[in-house]
Amino acid sequence: MTNHKYKLQELQQLDAAHYLHPFTDHKELRNAGSRMIVRGEGPFIYDSEGTEILDAMAGLWCVNIGYGRDELADVAAEQMREMPYYNSFFKCATPSPVQLSAKIAEIAPPNIEQVFFGSSGSESNDTALRLVRHYWALEGKPEKNIIISRQNAYHGSTVAGASLGGMSHMHKQLGGAVPNIVHVMAPYAYELAEPGESDEAFGLRAARTIEDAILAAGADKVAAFIGEPIMGAGGVKIPPASYWPEVQRICKKYDILLMLDEVITGYGRTGEWFAATTFGIEADTITTAKALTSGYQPLSALLVGERIAKTLVEKGGEFYHGYTYSGHPVCCAVGLKNIEIIEEEGLVDRVRNDTGPYLAEQLAKRIAVHPLVGETRSVGLMGGIEIVKDKADRSRFQPGGSAATKVRDHAIANGLMIRATDDTLIMSPPLIWTRETIDLAFDRLLVALDLAEAELASQR
Amino acid sequence: MTNHKYKLQELQQLDAAHYLHPFTDHKELRNAGSRMIVRGEGPFIYDSEGTEILDAMAGLWCVNIGYGRDELADVAAEQMREMPYYNSFFKCATPSPVQLSAKIAEIAPPNIEQVFFGSSGSESNDTALRLVRHYWALEGKPEKNIIISRQNAYHGSTVAGASLGGMSHMHKQLGGAVPNIVHVMAPYAYELAEPGESDEAFGLRAARTIEDAILAAGADKVAAFIGEPIMGAGGVKIPPASYWPEVQRICKKYDILLMLDEVITGYGRTGEWFAATTFGIEADTITTAKALTSGYQPLSALLVGERIAKTLVEKGGEFYHGYTYSGHPVCCAVGLKNIEIIEEEGLVDRVRNDTGPYLAEQLAKRIAVHPLVGETRSVGLMGGIEIVKDKADRSRFQPGGSAATKVRDHAIANGLMIRATDDTLIMSPPLIWTRETIDLAFDRLLVALDLAEAELASQR
Repeated sequence: MTNHKYKLQELQQLDAAHYLHPFTDHKELRNAGSRMIVRGEGPFIYDSEGTEILDAMAGLWCVNIGYGRDELADVAAEQMREMPYYNSFFKCATPSPVQLSAKIAEIAPPNIEQVFFGSSGSESNDTALRLVRHYWALEGKPEKNIIISRQNAYHGSTVAGASLGGMSHMHKQLGGAVPNIVHVMAPYAYELAEPGESDEAFGLRAARTIEDAILAAGADKVAAFIGEPIMGAGGVKIPPASYWPEVQRICKKYDILLMLDEVITGYGRTGEWFAATTFGIEADTITTAKALTSGYQPLSALLVGERIAKTLVEKGGEFYHGYTYSGHPVCCAVGLKNIEIIEEEGLVDRVRNDTGPYLAEQLAKRIAVHPLVGETRSVGLMGGIEIVKDKADRSRFQPGGSAATKVRDHAIANGLMIRATDDTLIMSPPLIWTRETIDLAFDRLLVALDLAEAELASQR
Repeated sequence: MTNHKYKLQELQQLDAAHYLHPFTDHKELRNAGSRMIVRGEGPFIYDSEGTEILDAMAGLWCVNIGYGRDELADVAAEQMREMPYYNSFFKCATPSPVQLSAKIAEIAPPNIEQVFFGSSGSESNDTALRLVRHYWALEGKPEKNIIISRQNAYHGSTVAGASLGGMSHMHKQLGGAVPNIVHVMAPYAYELAEPGESDEAFGLRAARTIEDAILAAGADKVAAFIGEPIMGAGGVKIPPASYWPEVQRICKKYDILLMLDEVITGYGRTGEWFAATTFGIEADTITTAKALTSGYQPLSALLVGERIAKTLVEKGGEFYHGYTYSGHPVCCAVGLKNIEIIEEEGLVDRVRNDTGPYLAEQLAKRIAVHPLVGETRSVGLMGGIEIVKDKADRSRFQPGGSAATKVRDHAIANGLMIRATDDTLIMSPPLIWTRETIDLAFDRLLVALDLAEAELASQR
């Protein structure tokens, strides 16, 4: 079905003339022309020419309850008619952020009762950074200021977010990072483990690079460690089981706060409300966004552990921080309804007990056996597939990233939206996916893998 | 009318237990309890107890078309049903950010054709900072890196936003600012002009502190100057007419980019679409947010001048920056409709030709003559009122800020939402205000001024 409402060529002309897309080579894009995504329904998106695509990325790690949810449109419109915006400054509030903060506290890990809202993961990571440094200043230790993060981490795209993150290409364009942030090794066993090193041993070794950084700086200079439970944009890098307990032990030993970035993993992705539960992590801050509204509205929530909250409230005076849209009533009303839908439809349980295990099983059974695939891995509905030239020695096709990009392009052309980061294919589909949707996705992915294999065979 | 849908006490309990408000002393708030704003209609807001308040702050400088605009709710719901979210990464787009970027380019100053979206003024100021530094790096001058800003400026609350801003209380809690940002004098004649110094002479002197900073650092080290055309949160500080032309001259002379922060002044506030036009400024970037959607949705737009855009597109390769919600389809659809409404109802012209001049006239006639008032000033529908102990020598009641706070509290209790910053009362009402609304506001404000005067008289 072609969507006659939009004329592709006209939109592409306006697009090229006026719209600076995020993370884009604009010259390249303007030569190619954008694909216009105009409609969504359940797990599918449709472009202006009527092409149907199964969206294995849930928009951008966010559309967890799928497209076309009229309930959220109804709630948004109702809230907008009644109270479209009022601020939460000057001792005022509107009801929906209050109700949403209470709901989040209910589903959050036990040490978390309080919530600070923003409009994006980036904004809430800025809040987290400001908050942990402010915490130590309030505790009389302003010199406890260094944040330890990891190479290849993604923590957003504000200056502070990019500084916290460990993406070297972002650092290069920054022209001045936020000071006192250091980066240690990512727990990415597939590429970084030594030959013969067990996953468990590697996990401990990766965690102990944090301890090394603490000892190098002095524990009295280190405020916090920040990490994604599973590195998302960096390539769905799932740490070995030994990693997080060791990180937690190190943070406790040196009295370092633990900041989790669950922008991608929050609200059911891993089969628990938060990956903190999946991995047994007790965090001082948890940054969330994306699936909080299933992407239907820009909204983020920083979950603040009681240790920090108590100091902030009791000793803090005014905390000079916040955004015009901290607690936007429409966004919060949509977030509340979205969480209710996830609850009512049992999506978290379904991921934990049914679709998550089935995804892992089918990845192993159907995908990992393909000649191009070196490893598959997943937690809940979040998976990574390593594309390799040689399964045994894990070597890659050259130039790096070209093979995964080829598979991705074939996948999209065959009706499956999947992403490639370096030579890892990554997926993070809506939680409404069923076993049948997983089967359909892998049917399409296997076509793409075979087409790529045929093109790459000569390079072996 | 009491709103029986919400039980105040129950909301206040949840609020105190779970919701960390922006820019708040949480202990103080939790003792007092939040006022719950539950409904809006035209220029009025209503709390949970049915109290009607005329909102002279338009929410937080944003609800320019007033509350209760069903058209925006309809557009949001329609877009959400059809396509609630898709990203603009990976050579994709949705139609509404494309259409909105074209519309913004149409109303923007002539040297601006391109737009980068975010969800807040903070995010877009982060984008602006990254972009100007990246521009100079692409031009082979990465050492042109320093940003000159002003004391008391407000540029948002991310780490970079607070660093760009000149609020000393925010800097103190930051624990590490973005490097290479320096702050010069604000063009605030009422407090900073020397005795006998004319406004024109003061405006030139304030502008030339920028030149001093450029010369101190070396022009080859300075990337840009950033300023709000009228400082908003800092106290509606309207610069003398001599200020901006001199700033422009200085920027051109030393080849320094000019960044405008029009988060508050954009989209009609000053009687032009942008204050750049009001003051005749040619800017390289213009940060906008707030009134872009009249606050109904979180959305910001960085308007990028052709000088930067050309380099970015032609020489840039990939710009590694952007947000999940850059170009959110629902927010952009609402923004587009909002601008159409401002156009259809002729609100910009009305501010320029009717309500703006009337506000200035009534400020002078009714407010400036009050014994507590040292000066009134306004541009379009944006006004400041200086509260003083002595009109002649401009001295203030002690402690500083206490008198304006007193007036503000009486104003709110008398049904007028107005803000106090230090000893300046500030207002920035919806553009739908009429002469009658201005009369009503000043009726209420005069009651508050008289009540405050009665309480303060003993201190004279």
